[in-house]
Amino acid sequence: MKLRAKTAFVAAFAGMVLLALTASAACSDNDKKGASSGNADLDAIAQERGLTPEDMKHALQQFVPPGSHDEYVMFASGGHSGQVLVIGMPSMRILKVIAVFSPEPWQGYGYGADWGEQTLAEGNPTIPADTDLTWGDTHHPALSETGGEYDGRYLYINDRANGRVGMIDLRDFRTKQLVAVPNIQTSHGGMFVTPNSEYVHVSSKFPEPWPAGSYADLTEYQQKYRGASAWLKIDQATGRINLDESFEVELPPYTQDLADSGKKVSEGWGFIGSFNTEMATGGISEGGNSLEAGASRNNFDYLHAINWKKAEEVVKAGKAEKINGINVISLETAAAEGIFYLIPEPKSPHGIDVDPSGRYMVVGGKLDPHVTVYDFNKIKAAADAKDFEGQDAFGIPILKFDSVVAGQVEVGAGPLHTQFDSQGHGYTSLFLESAVAKFTLGDDVVKTGEAPFTLVDKIPVHYNIGHLAITEGDTVTPDDKYLVALNKWSIDRFLTVGPLHPQNFQLIDLKGGGTEKMEMIADMPIGVGEPHYTQIIKADKLKALDIYPAGTDPTTMTTSTNAIVAGEEKVERNGNTVEVWMSAQRSHFTPDILRVKEGDRVILHVTNIEQTKDATHGFAISQYNVQASLEPGETTNFDFIASKAGAYNFYCTEFCSALHLEMAGWLLVEPAGSAVAAP
Amino acid sequence: MKLRAKTAFVAAFAGMVLLALTASAACSDNDKKGASSGNADLDAIAQERGLTPEDMKHALQQFVPPGSHDEYVMFASGGHSGQVLVIGMPSMRILKVIAVFSPEPWQGYGYGADWGEQTLAEGNPTIPADTDLTWGDTHHPALSETGGEYDGRYLYINDRANGRVGMIDLRDFRTKQLVAVPNIQTSHGGMFVTPNSEYVHVSSKFPEPWPAGSYADLTEYQQKYRGASAWLKIDQATGRINLDESFEVELPPYTQDLADSGKKVSEGWGFIGSFNTEMATGGISEGGNSLEAGASRNNFDYLHAINWKKAEEVVKAGKAEKINGINVISLETAAAEGIFYLIPEPKSPHGIDVDPSGRYMVVGGKLDPHVTVYDFNKIKAAADAKDFEGQDAFGIPILKFDSVVAGQVEVGAGPLHTQFDSQGHGYTSLFLESAVAKFTLGDDVVKTGEAPFTLVDKIPVHYNIGHLAITEGDTVTPDDKYLVALNKWSIDRFLTVGPLHPQNFQLIDLKGGGTEKMEMIADMPIGVGEPHYTQIIKADKLKALDIYPAGTDPTTMTTSTNAIVAGEEKVERNGNTVEVWMSAQRSHFTPDILRVKEGDRVILHVTNIEQTKDATHGFAISQYNVQASLEPGETTNFDFIASKAGAYNFYCTEFCSALHLEMAGWLLVEPAGSAVAAP
Repeated sequence: MKLRAKTAFVAAFAGMVLLALTASAACSDNDKKGASSGNADLDAIAQERGLTPEDMKHALQQFVPPGSHDEYVMFASGGHSGQVLVIGMPSMRILKVIAVFSPEPWQGYGYGADWGEQTLAEGNPTIPADTDLTWGDTHHPALSETGGEYDGRYLYINDRANGRVGMIDLRDFRTKQLVAVPNIQTSHGGMFVTPNSEYVHVSSKFPEPWPAGSYADLTEYQQKYRGASAWLKIDQATGRINLDESFEVELPPYTQDLADSGKKVSEGWGFIGSFNTEMATGGISEGGNSLEAGASRNNFDYLHAINWKKAEEVVKAGKAEKINGINVISLETAAAEGIFYLIPEPKSPHGIDVDPSGRYMVVGGKLDPHVTVYDFNKIKAAADAKDFEGQDAFGIPILKFDSVVAGQVEVGAGPLHTQFDSQGHGYTSLFLESAVAKFTLGDDVVKTGEAPFTLVDKIPVHYNIGHLAITEGDTVTPDDKYLVALNKWSIDRFLTVGPLHPQNFQLIDLKGGGTEKMEMIADMPIGVGEPHYTQIIKADKLKALDIYPAGTDPTTMTTSTNAIVAGEEKVERNGNTVEVWMSAQRSHFTPDILRVKEGDRVILHVTNIEQTKDATHGFAISQYNVQASLEPGETTNFDFIASKAGAYNFYCTEFCSALHLEMAGWLLVEPAGSAVAAP
Repeated sequence: MKLRAKTAFVAAFAGMVLLALTASAACSDNDKKGASSGNADLDAIAQERGLTPEDMKHALQQFVPPGSHDEYVMFASGGHSGQVLVIGMPSMRILKVIAVFSPEPWQGYGYGADWGEQTLAEGNPTIPADTDLTWGDTHHPALSETGGEYDGRYLYINDRANGRVGMIDLRDFRTKQLVAVPNIQTSHGGMFVTPNSEYVHVSSKFPEPWPAGSYADLTEYQQKYRGASAWLKIDQATGRINLDESFEVELPPYTQDLADSGKKVSEGWGFIGSFNTEMATGGISEGGNSLEAGASRNNFDYLHAINWKKAEEVVKAGKAEKINGINVISLETAAAEGIFYLIPEPKSPHGIDVDPSGRYMVVGGKLDPHVTVYDFNKIKAAADAKDFEGQDAFGIPILKFDSVVAGQVEVGAGPLHTQFDSQGHGYTSLFLESAVAKFTLGDDVVKTGEAPFTLVDKIPVHYNIGHLAITEGDTVTPDDKYLVALNKWSIDRFLTVGPLHPQNFQLIDLKGGGTEKMEMIADMPIGVGEPHYTQIIKADKLKALDIYPAGTDPTTMTTSTNAIVAGEEKVERNGNTVEVWMSAQRSHFTPDILRVKEGDRVILHVTNIEQTKDATHGFAISQYNVQASLEPGETTNFDFIASKAGAYNFYCTEFCSALHLEMAGWLLVEPAGSAVAAP
């Protein structure tokens, strides 16, 4: 095991980046003379458009003909857009942007309709109490699993900015729950689902004064700041998180980072990378070091190994304490019960990824050109044998590095994340080198005859790759078809659309995970947030609804008590409250005139009484900031004060029919001085 | 001239739609056996992926190889997402979603940074006063023009829901101004720019009680409700709208619809379609007809022809009246001064489009299978000769239909909008038939030898097409390359992603506008709003900034008074206000610890001091709903109350560097009881 001196490595950053960019610019400048495939029709097009023979192949590899469907669906976090992107593969077409943490009017999420209003309100933290959050920084999507395979039921995603988790129901691709996870102010890469979706896990990024809601200065960082590893219980019927049955493990005030689930031999365990075990707090302007320098001093940080099955038993045994509404296992209890072990990991680690066999854990140390591969069998043996090199300042035992490492592979500059194929390869993103490195794991999983722990291929990407994802990549059976490189910078790969450039997803052909070289197929700009991670599922595993059964409330997925059928429309007035049961169908609302008095409370129940696929109606009230999307069969409720006198047009916002523009009505809000309006 | 009986036509709707769907389903079911192109490499891929020879051609027609750039940029309204989509063509990749009317955290629009906060606040209507709008329904993008050509400087877009207009600066692709247009509560298709960008025009959709801000019941609709045609003056240096130099023309309480600018021979005029000249107000539940029935009784509605150059003179002559802060020409004055004429247009018209020569205006009557083509020379002659068939109830003269029509073409069911090539063809979208019809205009513009006013081609689309757009389509020189069909329904064209289906943009090859048949190339799902219209510009006309000059305030595009360079960072306390000048660069903020007291006002000026392309930083404060995007060279300001005691992490939200995760700091908000914090 070699650890290069950090200073030299850091000094080399700028040069490496420059080199990578220069080389790539040269590549994209290649002379395209027009191809000669031997087919006149195709050659004529290629000639006219300047496509090389390679380009022609790539076009055919990516193209999904009009009306045909993609083979895979990628769920990508939308980064600080707060949303989730649904992308068809290999065409790389965005099929939907799902609103999660940020209001989104097209879907009617957060614009008066109760589904979105309730979901967003539920996600507001109770500590501190006056927070009203309208955005998130989505990072790590986690598809629900059965037997270690994606099952297409639910999708979870964390909000890195505010320590929250969202749940998306894949029956209708709508967000049904936001959870402000107690004692977690910020989270990062902690999101994963256990192999049978017992729990979705998220861990804190930066620690906060403990217990959450208290105050402590940074001078008391080591004493008073803590993080948490949260195991959030999933209700199997609804996908909702039940905090009562969830628990947390208290964590030291390191900076916890990526995490991944054990599987097969390591099922029951979770693994969390960390950095800043130096517990640096920054303070450039207070005579100290920047965090960037202070957090990079140590040669090793600590991979956290947590035995969640044992933790579950400890909670059941009453050894946890309720803090801010959730059961928490203290550091002392975690150490005493053998729930929590630390494993040295080199040089400011970032990614931690478990291979499909569950035996190998790969860590990319971003200031070390190697990936370090751990062997779960050795971790388990060392933990059982108490083969410790000591314990940290918080009493957590530290396993001996040499006792648990299976191998190291020099992959290149700035390794971050690793994905796996089914043939025993790991694929690691190299941020500084802007490349993907392919290497072999232990020879018990390598099926290609290649030597273990060896670099076998590398492909340049453009530029500054963060995560990468393989089709069905986080399952126990990745399918070796495509790899997507999630590049943070695109620089000159696309037309300039202002100083805020798109990200660049690159589609790479894995050639079945064999010994053939990886092949770059296409670039995809992402101009709607900065996605951090994706999971890619086979399209046929998704069984989404085309329409809702008549009168469905999407919040509960049951029949709404306010659903109506044609002919049941009515208006009732009770004091200053006007309640309306309205239907929508091509091309009118019934009723289409609402007469209320300035200051009245208006409760509106609108049912789209159609059952035709794609016959969506919208419902918007001019100047009232009200907008809902009413899918066929859906019932939606509004509750607002008619505070502004005037005649306001309401209208259908989805172009539903030839007479769609006539699908409108009037909200007449009589000035307070007038006679009382008839209901 | 023939007008078909409306009842029979309406009865045929359902059948036609079914027929179209069945036919299309059959088409998409075709047997893909794998192609034989004569090239072994390509054939192997096609075989594996089930591509036909036609598919192979289309793949090559659409594909833009990795790192290569698109030839065109399409600006599409994002519909009720409130945003604008920027799409590369022919690849149909989304390059950016520009936040316009809805807050968007990735761009830092409406999350504390003053650029977005000010822009959104400026767009709040003053009538009624308590409106705080956070969405829009973007409909009709209008690129600035010089000499009738797109010039790539500015983009305007209207908010159909709330009668507003947004201005996007194409130097940085950011929204710089929202205007609550006085006296316009809702707008629709009124958006266009005059050929030299003197004005951007928008007209009301539904009328409102007049003057805006008053109240009148629907029983007084004809007497008291009015619309407006607004001519908003553009400041050439900034692109901003100057309401002081703008004016409106009062309109009758019809429902004004699409609009287009005169050009060349008709320059100086604008044309607005209308329907509901019946002045129906709905009232299904009050014993009346639905608007859909009431507004479709008449055989003719009125195309509005407005002479804006003459109107400009009338305003200068002091004959306008200020209403709600804008000069308004009354109906009486408009009639008396020869500014405003009505022209009969058949059967619930929708689109009105002016051909590149400026001579021909094409109207699609959505309940008439014909398009009606008007001749501007005849309109001008009839107006000059006062060749009127009478006047409407508001005193506006009505030209004789037969005096101004050049021809009618039977194009098919449900014609809506028309675009033109440079060869004398019109291309009309057929909503009910789900098709695009190609026909010839007058023989003075037809360059192909085809007979005038004749249907020459038709292509099916999938499904329910609204608008369509041709490359450089609204200029005086469309370039005949591609046509995009904006289909409202996709039904089964894409994988099911829940009951809210994507729209479908279809890319069609125009074959140079000659006599060859149109060819469908590709489908593009739109899962982020329902775009209504697009304009498509040659990419090389756009000259966007890659980075900002150091210290740029994007609101003004000048150097910020709060910009700093490295070393000038500082913190100042004045009473309960803490003001901070902060720098951001890879990979730290300076200062990185902010100590304030609960209740303090915090003013933050953050400068991204980098000048490297794509070196964007973000700035977010956990739990504070604060998020900005700081492009290289940008200075951004925040102003907020530190209302919540606690230690809050702030961090860079753009993955900027290998040590990006370390680019973080602390906002320490000491509880009110503690000693006063040092600055």
